[in-house]
This record gives sequence, structure tokens and C-alpha cells, in this order.
Amino acid sequence: MSSGFGTLFRITTWGESHGGSVGVVVDGCPPRFPVDEAQIQAQLDRRRPGQSAIVTQRKESDLIEIMSGVQDGLSLGTPIAMMVRNEDARSRDYDEMRDKFRPSHADYTYEEKYGIRAWSGGGRSSARETVGRVAAGALAEGILRSAFGVEIVAWVDSVQELQCPPVSESVVREEVDQTIVRCPDLEMAARMIEHIEAVRKTGDSVGGTIRCLIRGVPSGWGEPVFDRLEADLGRALLSLPACKGFEVGSGFAGCLMRGSEHNDAYVADDEKRVFTPTNHSGGIQGGISNGMPILLRAAFKPVATILSEQQTVTVERENTTVKGRGRHDPCVLPRAVPMVESMVALVLMDHAMRQNALLIPH
Amino acid sequence: MSSGFGTLFRITTWGESHGGSVGVVVDGCPPRFPVDEAQIQAQLDRRRPGQSAIVTQRKESDLIEIMSGVQDGLSLGTPIAMMVRNEDARSRDYDEMRDKFRPSHADYTYEEKYGIRAWSGGGRSSARETVGRVAAGALAEGILRSAFGVEIVAWVDSVQELQCPPVSESVVREEVDQTIVRCPDLEMAARMIEHIEAVRKTGDSVGGTIRCLIRGVPSGWGEPVFDRLEADLGRALLSLPACKGFEVGSGFAGCLMRGSEHNDAYVADDEKRVFTPTNHSGGIQGGISNGMPILLRAAFKPVATILSEQQTVTVERENTTVKGRGRHDPCVLPRAVPMVESMVALVLMDHAMRQNALLIPH
Amino acid sequence: MSSGFGTLFRITTWGESHGGSVGVVVDGCPPRFPVDEAQIQAQLDRRRPGQSAIVTQRKESDLIEIMSGVQDGLSLGTPIAMMVRNEDARSRDYDEMRDKFRPSHADYTYEEKYGIRAWSGGGRSSARETVGRVAAGALAEGILRSAFGVEIVAWVDSVQELQCPPVSESVVREEVDQTIVRCPDLEMAARMIEHIEAVRKTGDSVGGTIRCLIRGVPSGWGEPVFDRLEADLGRALLSLPACKGFEVGSGFAGCLMRGSEHNDAYVADDEKRVFTPTNHSGGIQGGISNGMPILLRAAFKPVATILSEQQTVTVERENTTVKGRGRHDPCVLPRAVPMVESMVALVLMDHAMRQNALLIPH
Amino acid sequence: MSSGFGTLFRITTWGESHGGSVGVVVDGCPPRFPVDEAQIQAQLDRRRPGQSAIVTQRKESDLIEIMSGVQDGLSLGTPIAMMVRNEDARSRDYDEMRDKFRPSHADYTYEEKYGIRAWSGGGRSSARETVGRVAAGALAEGILRSAFGVEIVAWVDSVQELQCPPVSESVVREEVDQTIVRCPDLEMAARMIEHIEAVRKTGDSVGGTIRCLIRGVPSGWGEPVFDRLEADLGRALLSLPACKGFEVGSGFAGCLMRGSEHNDAYVADDEKRVFTPTNHSGGIQGGISNGMPILLRAAFKPVATILSEQQTVTVERENTTVKGRGRHDPCVLPRAVPMVESMVALVLMDHAMRQNALLIPH
Repeated sequence: MSSGFGTLFRITTWGESHGGSVGVVVDGCPPRFPVDEAQIQAQLDRRRPGQSAIVTQRKESDLIEIMSGVQDGLSLGTPIAMMVRNEDARSRDYDEMRDKFRPSHADYTYEEKYGIRAWSGGGRSSARETVGRVAAGALAEGILRSAFGVEIVAWVDSVQELQCPPVSESVVREEVDQTIVRCPDLEMAARMIEHIEAVRKTGDSVGGTIRCLIRGVPSGWGEPVFDRLEADLGRALLSLPACKGFEVGSGFAGCLMRGSEHNDAYVADDEKRVFTPTNHSGGIQGGISNGMPILLRAAFKPVATILSEQQTVTVERENTTVKGRGRHDPCVLPRAVPMVESMVALVLMDHAMRQNALLIPH
Repeated sequence: MSSGFGTLFRITTWGESHGGSVGVVVDGCPPRFPVDEAQIQAQLDRRRPGQSAIVTQRKESDLIEIMSGVQDGLSLGTPIAMMVRNEDARSRDYDEMRDKFRPSHADYTYEEKYGIRAWSGGGRSSARETVGRVAAGALAEGILRSAFGVEIVAWVDSVQELQCPPVSESVVREEVDQTIVRCPDLEMAARMIEHIEAVRKTGDSVGGTIRCLIRGVPSGWGEPVFDRLEADLGRALLSLPACKGFEVGSGFAGCLMRGSEHNDAYVADDEKRVFTPTNHSGGIQGGISNGMPILLRAAFKPVATILSEQQTVTVERENTTVKGRGRHDPCVLPRAVPMVESMVALVLMDHAMRQNALLIPH
Repeated sequence: MSSGFGTLFRITTWGESHGGSVGVVVDGCPPRFPVDEAQIQAQLDRRRPGQSAIVTQRKESDLIEIMSGVQDGLSLGTPIAMMVRNEDARSRDYDEMRDKFRPSHADYTYEEKYGIRAWSGGGRSSARETVGRVAAGALAEGILRSAFGVEIVAWVDSVQELQCPPVSESVVREEVDQTIVRCPDLEMAARMIEHIEAVRKTGDSVGGTIRCLIRGVPSGWGEPVFDRLEADLGRALLSLPACKGFEVGSGFAGCLMRGSEHNDAYVADDEKRVFTPTNHSGGIQGGISNGMPILLRAAFKPVATILSEQQTVTVERENTTVKGRGRHDPCVLPRAVPMVESMVALVLMDHAMRQNALLIPH
Repeated sequence: MSSGFGTLFRITTWGESHGGSVGVVVDGCPPRFPVDEAQIQAQLDRRRPGQSAIVTQRKESDLIEIMSGVQDGLSLGTPIAMMVRNEDARSRDYDEMRDKFRPSHADYTYEEKYGIRAWSGGGRSSARETVGRVAAGALAEGILRSAFGVEIVAWVDSVQELQCPPVSESVVREEVDQTIVRCPDLEMAARMIEHIEAVRKTGDSVGGTIRCLIRGVPSGWGEPVFDRLEADLGRALLSLPACKGFEVGSGFAGCLMRGSEHNDAYVADDEKRVFTPTNHSGGIQGGISNGMPILLRAAFKPVATILSEQQTVTVERENTTVKGRGRHDPCVLPRAVPMVESMVALVLMDHAMRQNALLIPH
């Protein structure tokens, strides 16, 4: 049951990278909300391989098919199944993988866990699995926007040493999409693109960080103790392929401050609306949103597939070497931006519903 | 249901900081394992307030009472309820908190969420809630050790700028406990203790990081897609009070490397046992353990309670100031060490059982 | 995790029959509702052993202790832990059970499942386990009544061949409690009591059926497909000790009718309120309440403990005989009435919250 | 999340009766088991409309498409998605249903719950939803058979007053399938068929009961307290469309017996294998299997769609009448037989995995 996510707004994804299709069932979607196929497709297009020169050239149109749960453009409250057919699965590029484990991929661990694995294309561990997440996340995002005014914007914050300068809290997705690398600072974006292209030519890969800013979450979402908003968001992002770190608000840097510097004072304005002039908490205190923007950051390791020879073992546990072929991303970050936004939307949608369940008079 | 954690080895904690008791029910504990009350008490003693001069002086003996699920020292397979009575809850120190929200505490967000809150002592948002986690975690740890040989060791890695040098992969808990700050490097430990004492005198607080090393986890634990081992571990640690960041293996630093540097080559030894000479993956690949040590790091912000005047608002949303009283930790890290170990044990126990459920012949 | 019940209003019970205590944690209780200890105690008193001459004479005062989650009589939204200390556990009556399995008890199956069992007093399979359910159910019932006007009334419908005639849809709990057997028809109640007393003198036991009527459930509670209201109610009652059958509305008798007789026509009154003149559906259609009273019936087998010699096997799987001792119920039904009401309340509370989660404008 | 079922072997179904497709995702299927498409198709064919003269004449080939999770005929351990395209959805037969609620259908309750409904063909409340359950159940059944030797056989036990005489405990599916009504007693089967045909000519419908016998379940499956095997089986069957009652073992009839008659004595044979000469418990004691055959019975009300005029209300809550059109079953029972078997298989598969999770040495 590890391909399911969420308590009330619950998704289940299916599909191997080189199987017939990848998809998702969304169970628990509230009724009578618009299901905008174009909006869902738009997020899938941002995730799609082949969208630019700096990502993998696998050719997938990734056209979404909505198979249930929608009538006349409105959600019925019943499961919404969505599917994308795989088109360009060149299994021949992967023949060597039948017998060898690619370093820092999941080939070896799947084999150790299950005693079997979809050796072609990485199976479920491929980033292709995220198609279903992004489709479901775009659906959730549409509801969060229309019902609560929530806005979610992620962007590439760093590529290896190249660090984007601080970004305005009013940043919008259009600014992020000005360049193919999805960094809203145009000068830094240009340097990042140049760097990724140089890395690609060497057959190597790079990683980096993504930031995400969420505006419009009302105070009171999230839960005490285990299902804290930051814990659920952390789990959501750490479940993305290649994600190795997560922080909220001040994060690791906050450890260098003293309490007197780090604490966010409360201030009430003339209409008794409460805010905090600083936001080291990143919009979450004690696991619950405080009405300030939520600020997240996630670390993505360099892509494991590289085009040079590496030491590894065969399925018979004999030492050997392997060399990446196939078509892969020198840098996963531009495509990971919609994945991050989608996972955030799924978490927030679930918590919005959980808060509504509390029978608190409106 | 946010006070529950785990799928098969599931715990539910209860209790407010200044209520009559705090406790936990462990539902799903495998039968016929020794339940060692002394071992559980030992971890609680490491978590206990008043244990040393650098933590809060609240006096709690924190004696565990096991109320069910055990017969003649063995688990019955039925729920194990454990409880600790609260003793030293000086609610008078908190009278001001009835009307004011403490900055960067959860007073305001609980009030926004529920419209009511246990204003005395922080209620469920107090670190006192972790008593149940630690008791359940110590129980899980005992089973993991006896059934699989798993060893979990956490330590204080940094206090503000004071950073512990790299620690041997064979570090044991006794080395960690040589000093009250729980940093195994004795020289750095002395500096940390001195720093915390200085900070305490100013009424301020500091944060830092904790590292955790897990030896002996067999390959194959964890799940693909959403319930990845690193995602579940991340959620577990991020659910601890004051935790703002999490990383596994190379974490954020890994983003600065290229794929060719970051990839962990596989090597088979003469007995066809596979290992990786480097361990940037931190023992987890594609969400599943690969048999190497698991390496985690978590960031804890400085404690929110400080003894100086701060700006805040009243429950009527009027601007005011507040000044911490009560007895609190200048630095939560030494007491957070067993909390981290316990959360890790709970996650691993659950995944051990999930792996066993797969009907794979042994 | 089989001692947990519910999705949003989730309870976990603990405790063996002859252990130190039995209890429950309610996780997910909505905030700011009155928690009426007297009301909870009243339902526990209806479940209590020793309450009358026709039930077991084990002496337990069953005084409830509320340990968390409540402040000034109001729920905090955090876990509510409640506990009852065991007082009169005469383990010596059970010495023989250490070595022998009692027929139609759970001694044998627990041993087969776990390889260990709390041999004294039946452990978790004892009806004593239901203390926690009843306490939590009474809490849920109070919220359902105050927030929605829901009323739940169960009564003894039959004892062996003695069948209560049809009962008015306006029956209240006071009418049920007029006699110790909890059958609202006074003439039939007298016959039932006489019968149970006669059976008790022979050392034998009897079973029977309980009916439950629920008024005031609004239309729209329940879920399509798997979590149908009747499915969740059925599971809830079938999880009670000794329950072997469940039906809703026309139940098994409905199988004898044709569709043209069985269908419930819809009629709108002058204020466009919809009702059905017949109620073969028992208030639920397609898994969802239709606003009519919900009608349930459950079958309870005769109590397994009887005071005559029976064939059985030892823990060494040798043939032998066993003879019940201890203090047990000749008929469990009067005490099962509050258990049924409590399980119904828990299911309805959960579905009320799930319906509220759907973001449907009120 | 009400279209999901199971804890470890978890299925999620999707699809409306008149939508493009119906399907299921099975998440948590153990790896390396044969996935026999022919076997799955065979059970779907037994569920299929149009299979005989006594069921609905809707023409659906119901050909299964397995979309993921399988490689070379073996399960991968990853989600198995399966889908059937809808072919013969004559929405025009349902135009009247846009404005009127059909009595004893779920049209009204879905509208009350969601404020919207798939008015054509009953949407999710149609028996068409069970396609996914049967496909997943057939998969589970195959694993239960090959890994544990479990055999599940259900049959039509009664049609209105026509009651099948007792059936041998060695009954097999081939005997059940000798006639189109799926009653293994050939004489009674002939009478049932004749009766259903007569009822059909009058435009009316009938209900009845289904029995299910499960052989080969080892002792020790199931759980104490809430997730009792009988509770989970009861919930599973009560979640089927039109099911109004459930009993295990002696069921309601057992209420007429005394304890001394009802108790199942234990006897050990020469090889110390334990059995019970009687089986009033129906193979389950205290929620856990005891190794004897499991015996279940479920009640199905007469089909709601009948071809005569009935009183109802419009979506505007005006009184009106409605008359069934479309192609429907005069008796759902023959097609419900594989549905019952499938739900039983899903419950048992989940409990088999849960038992294996307990870390008990084999």
C-alpha cells in the first residue's frame, strides 16, 4: 500500500516506466468542484520529458485521459482516475540493466526487497511514476485555489554551487517559467542553463535545491503531534525521486541563531489581524499553519544516470562495470518544480479537509 | 487521529504537559518478545527533565507503568499501554499564558485551529508529549535489536556554531553519554556545555543539529514511491518539537557534487556480499535500505521560551509583551537524542513488519 | 493495530480482563464539546458486571478516570484517554485455563495466532475489553446528540425463543431500562428474566438478538462503495464478543419479498421534506443515510462459559475435559445493549466528521 | 477514500456505470506470484451481464486489461492496475433518471450527500462498480490458493422462499456452475430458474441468500477486538450492492440454542491435530480462524429496478411517479456469487499478510 498517499484526499498511483501506462486514482475528491483538464495538462507539460534542451529527450506527449469521477466538468465526489499512455519506451537501451545494477539507482534495492524487478527503465523508481502525482496535485491545486485562494509557487533555488538570490514573496509561476531552468532570477537562470549544458556534454549530472512558497493558507491547518504540517510536507517531498533533504522556514540555518533572534513576534494590525514581522517559523508553529506564507526547501542529489563507466555488480553478485545509455536528465530540477508543487498541494488539500471535519461552526 | 503513528506497529500518545499523566498505547507489537521495563526506563531517564545542569529543572521522576499487553515479561501481541504520572506541573508559572500567546510557541496556532487550548504548560505541544514516543520507541528498539541486530545511535552534532568533528561509524551509546551534552567528541562536548551554560545565564536559548547512525538494517526494508524509508524517517523526525530540517546521506551538501562523484559504486566481496565503498546514499536507495549504515541529520531550532521581554498579542488580539517564566531548556538537544532514536526505532519496526508481510519465503 | 477503530474519530482500547486496568484513547475528538463524565459513567454502569441478578457477579465499580484532552469540561481537540482499574480479578478461578482451552472461547485461537496468551480471564477476548468502547461511545453519543440531535436506542429483542413484539419508533432508553433485562415490552421482559434465571440454575447459557433504532441521522451520512454505512455498522457490531449475525432494515426477511413490495416509495410533504412511508431500507440506501430512522439487528450466541463438563484439549494437544468455574453471564444481552449503542455512536461520529470534511457549503 | 479496501493488500476501484471504464488498482500485492489473466477473466465472466437468460441483457465483453505491476506473468510487488472498458451504456434508457429518484436506489442519497450525481445508470452505486472488486479478488484468490491451499466456494442458497438443502463441505465451483442460477442442488436450481423467469415476465424482481464456504484457512488468521475476521468479512459482504444481512457459523439460528448445545468441543486426533466435531463457530473464534471451514451467509434484497410504476419525487422534491426501463436483473444472485467469493478473498489475503507481519518464527 505504499503507492497510496493521503488520508481523506487519497491518491494511488500505478505504472512502470516502460509499461503500457502510468496513472492515478484520486479517492475522496470533494464534489462539485471544476476539474480543469487544461490546467492538469499544463502541469504535466511542465513535468514532461523533452520539453527543453536541458532535460531528457525521451519523447512523451503525456496527454491526460480522465476516466471517471467527472460529469460536465464537475467532480462527482467519486474516484477520479487519470491515465497517460507510455509512448517512447526504448527498452533496448536498457538491455544491460537486466543483468547489472546501476549505481545509486534503485535496481539493487528493489531486487533485494522483492526478489524481482522491472529491470527496464527503472520500473516504479523512475521519475515517470510522478505523472500520476502531478495530475492529482494539479487537481488539488485547482480546488485549493478556488475554495481558499491558496497559491503554490516553486522554483529552482540552486544548481550545484549556483545559488539564486532571495526571491520576492509575491513571485508567480509565470516568472518562474520565463526560462527553461525555472529560476526566476534571469541572470542566475542564464548561468544555470549554461552550466547544465556544459555538464551534459561531459555525460555527467548535477543536483540542486528547490524552494517553494505557499501563500493564502489560513491559520489552523495542520495537526499537533505526528501529522504536523511540516512533517507531512517533509514526507511528501522526501518521497520524490532523488530528494535527500528538506527544511521549513529557517531550517538548518536557524540552528545558528539564538532564541531571541529566531522567535517571530506577533503583531496585531488595526483590524486585529495577527501577523509576524519575521517568518523564521516558515508559516508553521507546532505543526499548525499560522497564516503567514509557508516556506520550504528541498535538496535533490545529482541524477544517478551518467554516461561514464562505473563499478558495480551483476545480479549474480559478480564485480563488473556499467555505463549509462538511454536518454536522461543532466539535471532533474526544472522538471521537479511541478512535482514539488503537486506534492505540496496534495498535503494541503488533505489538511484542509481534515480541518473541515472538526465540526467547528464557521 | 494525529496522535497516532505507524501502520502495523502503531502507537497513540496522550496527555497534556500539565494534565494528570502522559502515556502511549502500542498496538500491533509482535508477540513473545521480551519487554524490558528497565531498558524503557533507561531511555526515559535520558529524556527526563532535571537530569543535568544544562536542561530544564522541572522535577519529574518519569517512572513508567506498564498497564497491559505483557505477561511474565513477554509481549502478548495485544496493546501495550504505558503511562507516566505528571508530578511537578507548576501551573502558576503559566498564568500569563492564559491571556497571551508566547512567540514561536504553538499557543496561537492551537487557538486558531481549535478555538480552545490547554494554556498551561503548552498542553500537547510541550516536549512532555514525547514521553510516550520514547517509551514506545525503546520497546521497538529492543525488538529490533534482538530480532535483527539493529543498533541505533544518535548524538549532538552541533550547538549553534559549535560543530562536532566526524564520528566513527562504530560509535556506541556509552560514548555519547560520557557527557551531559551527548556529543561523543569530548573536547567539543566541553565547549558545547560551556556555551549552553553561558547562554542560559543570559536567559536566551540555542539550537543545533543531531546526527543518527543506524547499523544492521538488512537490505530490502522500506517501500517504493510514497512510504520510502527516508520519507517516513523524515516525517518522524520533523514531527518532533522544534525540528525544522532533515537530511539523509549527503543531504543538502550532496547538491554541490556531480553525479560522477556522488554515485555509490557497488562492490561484491569474496562471499558475494555487496557493499558500497562510499555511502552518499546514506544507506537508502529508491526508498529501500541497501544494507549500508543509515545516516540521518536533523535541525532543531533554538527553544522558543526565553527569559526576556518579547512583543506578542493577547487572546483578544491586542498588542502586548510577554516574558518567559517557568523552567525551560536553554538547549533541547541533549534530551532530543533519545527522542530521535525512538522515532527512528518506530519507523524501522513498522517497516520490518511490512517487509515480513510480503509472503516472501525466508 | 487491530485494537484501533475509526478513521477521523479514532479510538484505541487496551487492557486484559485480569490485568491492572482497561482503557481507551480517543484521538480526533472535535474541540469545544462538553465531556460529561456522569453520562459516560452512566453507560459504563449499564455495561457493568454485577448490576443485577441475571448477569455475572464479578464486582467491579468501573469508575472512569479521564486522564487527558479535557479542560473545564470541554474537549480540547487532543486525545482523550480514559481508564478503569480492574478490582475483582480472581485469577485462581482460572488456574485450569492455563493448561486447557475452553470450548468456543478464544483461548485456542489466540494461542494458535500468537503462541502465547493471557490465559487468566480470557485476556483481550473477555467482554471486559468493551469498557473502553463504551466510554468512547458514550462520549461520541453526547456529541452526536448535541451537534445533530441524533438519538440511539438499543434493546433486547429476543432471548432464545422469546421474541419481543414490535416496538414503537419513539422508544426511549428509559423504557428499555424499566427492567433488568432491557426489553421494553414489560410482559416479555418478565418472561425473559424468568427464563434466564432458570437457565442460570442449570449452569447453562442462552443467546438472543438486540435491535437498535437510530433517530435523527440527517440524509447524506455514509459513503459509497466500501465504507457504506451498513458495512461499517455491521463490522462494528460483529466486532463485539459473541456477535454472529447482523442485518439492516428488512435484513434476511427482506429476501422473501419481491421488489415491488420491498421498494420504499419517496413522498414529499408540503415543505418538500422527503420521506418513505415504508422503511425496508432501514434508513440507508447505497451506503448512505436517507433521513429515515436507521434500524439494525444483531445476533449474539449463547455465552461460551457453562458450568458443565465439556470435551477439549490441553495446550499439549491431549484430549481432556474442562468445566467452567468463575463468575459469568448466563445471558450477555442486557449488558450488550450499551455496547451496541456505543459501537453505533462511534461509527456515526466518524461518518459525521467525514461528511463535514467534503468542503460542501452549509 | 471510501473506494479503497484493505490494509496491506489494498485495492482502490474507480468508474461509473456509464463512464468510459471501470477498474481497480491493487497496491501491496506480494511479489513473484503468478498473475493468471485467464483466471481473472474467468471470474469476470461469471460476474458479466448477459451471461444467461436470467440476468440483465446489457452486452459487455468485460475483457480485462492489466496495465502495470506484472512482468513475464509474475507480480512485481508494485501496483497492479486493471481496467475494463464500458461498451453498451445506453444512457438514453436513463433520461428520466436525470430528474427523478428511483425508489430504493441510491439516486436520492447520492444527491443528498454530494449535491450532484452521475444520474445515468446509477454511477458508482451500480453493480458495475464490482468489476474491479472481482478482478482484484480473483488475483487474491490465486495467491491464497497457491501459497496456502485456501479454497473459496459460494453458491445461491435461496431465491425468495426457495431454499437449497444443505450442501456438502466438499462442494466445488464446478458443481455450482452446473446451472445458470449457481445453486449446486440441481432440482432446486431448476425450480429457482423457473421462478426467476416467471418473476421477470411480471417485470418484478426477487432476492435471496448466498452461502460461502472457505476451506484451508490455517488457524491463527484474523485479529482480536475490532479487526476480527468475522467483522471484516461482514463488512466486506455488506459493502456489496443490495446486501442487507450477514451471518457467520450458526448466525441468527444460533440464538435459539443453549451454550451446552452451541459450544464446539475440541478434539485432538492421533497426530495432535485439533478439530471440532461441530462447527457452530463457523471456523472463527474470538475473531481468529480455528482451522475449521469458515461458513458465511449473506442476504440480498430484491433488485430495486422493476418495470412497474412507482411513487417517487423529482430533484425539485415534487411528487411524481417513475417506471423502470433499461436492462436489469430480475435476480442479482447468480452474478453475486463471484462478488462474494472475491470480497472474501480480499479479506483473507489481507489477514494472511498481517499474520505474516508478526515476526513469528516459521
